[in-house]
Amino acid sequence: MNTFGHIYTLTSFGESHGPAIGGIIDGTPAGLLLDMDRLRAEVARRRPGSSPLTTPRKEDDAVEFLSGLMGVGDNPSDLLPFTAETKHAVTLGTPIGFMVRNADQRSADYNRLRYVYRPSHADYAWQQKYGVRDWRGGGRSSGRETLARVVAGAVARQALERQGVEITSRLVSIGSTSDPAQFDAEVLKARSEGDSVGGVVECVCTGVPAGWGEPTFGKLQQMMASAMLSIGAVKGFEYGMGFAGAQRRGSEMADCFCPAVNGDNGDNDNGGITTMSNHSGGIQGGISNGQPIVMRVAFKPTATLCRELPTVNASGEAVTLRVGGRHDPCIALRGRFVVEAMAAMVLLDAYLLSQASSPLAL
Amino acid sequence: MNTFGHIYTLTSFGESHGPAIGGIIDGTPAGLLLDMDRLRAEVARRRPGSSPLTTPRKEDDAVEFLSGLMGVGDNPSDLLPFTAETKHAVTLGTPIGFMVRNADQRSADYNRLRYVYRPSHADYAWQQKYGVRDWRGGGRSSGRETLARVVAGAVARQALERQGVEITSRLVSIGSTSDPAQFDAEVLKARSEGDSVGGVVECVCTGVPAGWGEPTFGKLQQMMASAMLSIGAVKGFEYGMGFAGAQRRGSEMADCFCPAVNGDNGDNDNGGITTMSNHSGGIQGGISNGQPIVMRVAFKPTATLCRELPTVNASGEAVTLRVGGRHDPCIALRGRFVVEAMAAMVLLDAYLLSQASSPLAL
Amino acid sequence: MNTFGHIYTLTSFGESHGPAIGGIIDGTPAGLLLDMDRLRAEVARRRPGSSPLTTPRKEDDAVEFLSGLMGVGDNPSDLLPFTAETKHAVTLGTPIGFMVRNADQRSADYNRLRYVYRPSHADYAWQQKYGVRDWRGGGRSSGRETLARVVAGAVARQALERQGVEITSRLVSIGSTSDPAQFDAEVLKARSEGDSVGGVVECVCTGVPAGWGEPTFGKLQQMMASAMLSIGAVKGFEYGMGFAGAQRRGSEMADCFCPAVNGDNGDNDNGGITTMSNHSGGIQGGISNGQPIVMRVAFKPTATLCRELPTVNASGEAVTLRVGGRHDPCIALRGRFVVEAMAAMVLLDAYLLSQASSPLAL
Amino acid sequence: MNTFGHIYTLTSFGESHGPAIGGIIDGTPAGLLLDMDRLRAEVARRRPGSSPLTTPRKEDDAVEFLSGLMGVGDNPSDLLPFTAETKHAVTLGTPIGFMVRNADQRSADYNRLRYVYRPSHADYAWQQKYGVRDWRGGGRSSGRETLARVVAGAVARQALERQGVEITSRLVSIGSTSDPAQFDAEVLKARSEGDSVGGVVECVCTGVPAGWGEPTFGKLQQMMASAMLSIGAVKGFEYGMGFAGAQRRGSEMADCFCPAVNGDNGDNDNGGITTMSNHSGGIQGGISNGQPIVMRVAFKPTATLCRELPTVNASGEAVTLRVGGRHDPCIALRGRFVVEAMAAMVLLDAYLLSQASSPLAL
Repeated sequence: MNTFGHIYTLTSFGESHGPAIGGIIDGTPAGLLLDMDRLRAEVARRRPGSSPLTTPRKEDDAVEFLSGLMGVGDNPSDLLPFTAETKHAVTLGTPIGFMVRNADQRSADYNRLRYVYRPSHADYAWQQKYGVRDWRGGGRSSGRETLARVVAGAVARQALERQGVEITSRLVSIGSTSDPAQFDAEVLKARSEGDSVGGVVECVCTGVPAGWGEPTFGKLQQMMASAMLSIGAVKGFEYGMGFAGAQRRGSEMADCFCPAVNGDNGDNDNGGITTMSNHSGGIQGGISNGQPIVMRVAFKPTATLCRELPTVNASGEAVTLRVGGRHDPCIALRGRFVVEAMAAMVLLDAYLLSQASSPLAL
Repeated sequence: MNTFGHIYTLTSFGESHGPAIGGIIDGTPAGLLLDMDRLRAEVARRRPGSSPLTTPRKEDDAVEFLSGLMGVGDNPSDLLPFTAETKHAVTLGTPIGFMVRNADQRSADYNRLRYVYRPSHADYAWQQKYGVRDWRGGGRSSGRETLARVVAGAVARQALERQGVEITSRLVSIGSTSDPAQFDAEVLKARSEGDSVGGVVECVCTGVPAGWGEPTFGKLQQMMASAMLSIGAVKGFEYGMGFAGAQRRGSEMADCFCPAVNGDNGDNDNGGITTMSNHSGGIQGGISNGQPIVMRVAFKPTATLCRELPTVNASGEAVTLRVGGRHDPCIALRGRFVVEAMAAMVLLDAYLLSQASSPLAL
Repeated sequence: MNTFGHIYTLTSFGESHGPAIGGIIDGTPAGLLLDMDRLRAEVARRRPGSSPLTTPRKEDDAVEFLSGLMGVGDNPSDLLPFTAETKHAVTLGTPIGFMVRNADQRSADYNRLRYVYRPSHADYAWQQKYGVRDWRGGGRSSGRETLARVVAGAVARQALERQGVEITSRLVSIGSTSDPAQFDAEVLKARSEGDSVGGVVECVCTGVPAGWGEPTFGKLQQMMASAMLSIGAVKGFEYGMGFAGAQRRGSEMADCFCPAVNGDNGDNDNGGITTMSNHSGGIQGGISNGQPIVMRVAFKPTATLCRELPTVNASGEAVTLRVGGRHDPCIALRGRFVVEAMAAMVLLDAYLLSQASSPLAL
Repeated sequence: MNTFGHIYTLTSFGESHGPAIGGIIDGTPAGLLLDMDRLRAEVARRRPGSSPLTTPRKEDDAVEFLSGLMGVGDNPSDLLPFTAETKHAVTLGTPIGFMVRNADQRSADYNRLRYVYRPSHADYAWQQKYGVRDWRGGGRSSGRETLARVVAGAVARQALERQGVEITSRLVSIGSTSDPAQFDAEVLKARSEGDSVGGVVECVCTGVPAGWGEPTFGKLQQMMASAMLSIGAVKGFEYGMGFAGAQRRGSEMADCFCPAVNGDNGDNDNGGITTMSNHSGGIQGGISNGQPIVMRVAFKPTATLCRELPTVNASGEAVTLRVGGRHDPCIALRGRFVVEAMAAMVLLDAYLLSQASSPLAL
């Protein structure tokens, strides 16, 4: 169960303090030109250590690509061996293997966590399930695993751009404030108190034409919800009016159709039809309707705190624990890049699935 | 994409006004004794027409089982042909086919919807995707499709009871009120105004032992989110502290472990360990931790209204439309039975998957 | 594991003597016009009871379609309710549910097989696996299950015809003879001696363009082998030169390329290239190369014999058993229609998959 | 489509002359102790360059494991970091990533193959499908890809040994001879003539208990056929009596049951029942019956020859080509290790699936 997607898939591997993490991207259409510098820059957005708002764990996170790509010269049909310096690559349609060596591990920091369960972490549940676990830095359950997703998302984004799709995100709240001017302060205050704080990320996908998504059990919102809830720190997902809409009347929520005037639908024709509002968040009946797809994702506060907490050890005895270590005081800040990556993977997958289900002419 | 699940699966079929709806349940372990009267009663809970709060569309919804079951006599190993009167059945481990004939269809009511798109319905998106659709009663996108889920959920529930798992649900809000004493009034007021109203359902699963759920992309919350968002009217999902938790500090959210005292964990041992709180909603690191699984699901107000609304027809021309017809003023009321059914399907699936991933003794 | 295929899928259900057998076809593209009379005629080819060479079990095998289709009038966009009399139908892109009631069951014939294992049948292995089984007529392991495949194959065939693909089959040997003039005699002789006889079916698919099949683990020959070996009585599969080719030199087997002259490639262009021979059987590197796909499938002799054989009962005691009953003396005769159906399902699936992996322009 | 299996899966990546090949093994149960020296030795069996009968391409093929494993000390619960020197490892239940750098590539040898299609190779079909390909050494279609399978098979074998399962193979024929004394001569003769020769491999799996395999579309023979036909050079598969059985009478093929005498069934009880013969090859009704599983796999002669052959170039013009290069004169010799690996993967997968479908007590 380490594979995500149907046609465009990511299979990922790696423990936080093992030799490496990485993955295999399958289902990329052949012939996609990739701007490798942009791809590397997109992966770098997720990198920790670049701001006082994130974990001081520094990682180079240099992604090594192992297969599935060749370089292209000035003439795109002029194929070259792929190297770490390749600036323009083309996909072969074969699986793209990639890997990042783990570095700056400080595994010894974790020795005292070997036989104790950190509160609100995966430690206990994993030990119960598997009977064995890599206790160093969360092992497989570490957020470091999301690096593989960001790579797969960055490839998907460049494929989607060909279809006119753009994906953006922003923080809509951090802790109890939804005023962006207060965001930094909220994070730094929590950090200074050895605490952490949650946040809500909004992700918007524009340019998606009507017709992506596969009912009944491959609805576009379903694929998105599955994608977002696969991110360890995510506790909630909504699209369109979401939970707020559950407090409303139907008459407030009707997205009435109207003829599109020039440009309303961007590059997409969508039958010359648009809607007057977008309470539906761009999806109706599980299928995109040509309007922007709008989703919100709730990140819990980081569970790792610089405080002493009661817990139990592997023998079931009550102990107290102060985890310390290096962590993000607000995981939503970097989490939003993972949200974008997952959204990109879902949309490319939905696009490819729609190719396989496109109607025959009557 | 009409199949849900990994090991325990439902593949469903059927348009609202076609000959029949139904499905195939696959992956049921052999040798499960089913109380058919209870099963039929559970399916009947979803049935419309039983209260002024739901659609007046009356359907007998008598489920006909076509395969996968045999009757059992007083001695459970005494197998008998399965008939509509069978009270006690046993699963053969083979697929369970079932079907419900559509009746009380009044398809003619829908003739004028053939060439027009109802606002906030699937009509337009489906037409764009498929180029053809059954316009009668929503066709495949009708909520009637959820009947198949309720059947599969009822089978799953009886299998889960053997594992000590119980699944319950309740409405936590309807429209703007969270006072249960006001729920009926809220619904009837909306109905009387030709309007509809949304609601939020909370679902709690107790007795789930630690160890169900498959990281990284088969996390228990991910399977639940996918399940819930596959329900047409659902716009949001959260578990544990959910969106509210994103406003909190980590120190408020830590579920500290402690030794279990007798009975704390119900019938499950869970290593003699429990938690002092359950902000995590029973899932940590994608895996159940032995605490109750707590989820909330947001249902939008029914999109079908008894009001005149602007829209467009199939030629893209602006028209006005008053849908009328028979519909639920608050789909969350019946929707909660679908939520329970999906939760049951997910949990049985997670249990069976955990059997396939159970550790070998060191 | 009762679902076959990736995009175009069949999920089947049903025991031989249960209430019904049937299935759900998913992934059919919307807008496919179906000639229902031809479809019914194709299903009827498999029907038993029509010749002294097959089982005398007579079944009407009238397939009832339950969803996924609407009738079309003279104008194909004029949609009508689907009924048993519908001559021209169109697919909605939604799952096609279908069902055949079991009749002429004579279940009592099987009562004495309840506690005994027929040699070379599924009885014993299933009892060991499931701990329970429907002993009547083989239950789920009966060849009657293949009826669902023939329905799904008949739909696929009509979709493939639009792509110019034709699928045919023939018996290349029955028992020890490969002289078609001797086939009937070989079968009748075996039958008169209370015995049965095996056979080899060759299936040829023409008009498949270059490019269908998905390496590494979705190779076209792999999908075909999986399809054929899922037929209960099939013991072997080969394509191209197959086992005979394993006795040859590479120099005898090279399919040298040459420029295609007009019409060499049928309707398919295939880059203006063809081969001088077809030892590869139309597939190279897991992908169709534009040449006819040629496969051979080995059917064992029917295991049910009119002879007394030693066996054991459910208590493990040695007994003798004379099965009798009604069966085909040479299952390959009707089996070839199942071979064609499976080939059609695989090819449509491969076509739809190729749509999802088609290259982007450089 | 670069993933094989259901629960125990291999996802592989890599072009022959790209940076690396490798894969991700998912679904390995946690807590499996692995003897790493034996594992490396098993992988080495496939290595080329060790005999005049195989390709002179020399590769170290040192597999680097990247995740999913930890070392164990004298006490198996004493976990250590995994390194290249680790002798005893334990699986964590998380994905096992692994990689082999490509070396000794001589890619320049292939430059002249860039715009020409080798007869009976994947070149042409892949170019038609993808519009782009890595021409160096066959790229993704190279047999080098099977190295990943051998790694996954070696892990599976050690898991299966715990269940008492042993997997062996042998050549039953090379070219036209089935006399093992002639095998070397047959290969060397072909080689000396710039030619190649095919062969048939028999694989036998003992110790498989009754009950593995999942009807209807997860039959054990179906999974095996799919596994074997996914090997590029394989053209045919049969089990039990296979094609020869299609020439026989049913009365010759009946595997009559009898009570097992002590030890007949090895360590498996199988209900105290065995068979007098094994024409069925250990599988009945798609499910193992406790007898040895016997399969035969046909390998075509290597398509790469040291001879001049007519073909066409990328412009569709007729040319002649002498490939030369380094290749195996009889791929079946090394292919049998891939056959064993695939059989091991299938059996472990079938075992894990059987855990998920094991019956509940009545």
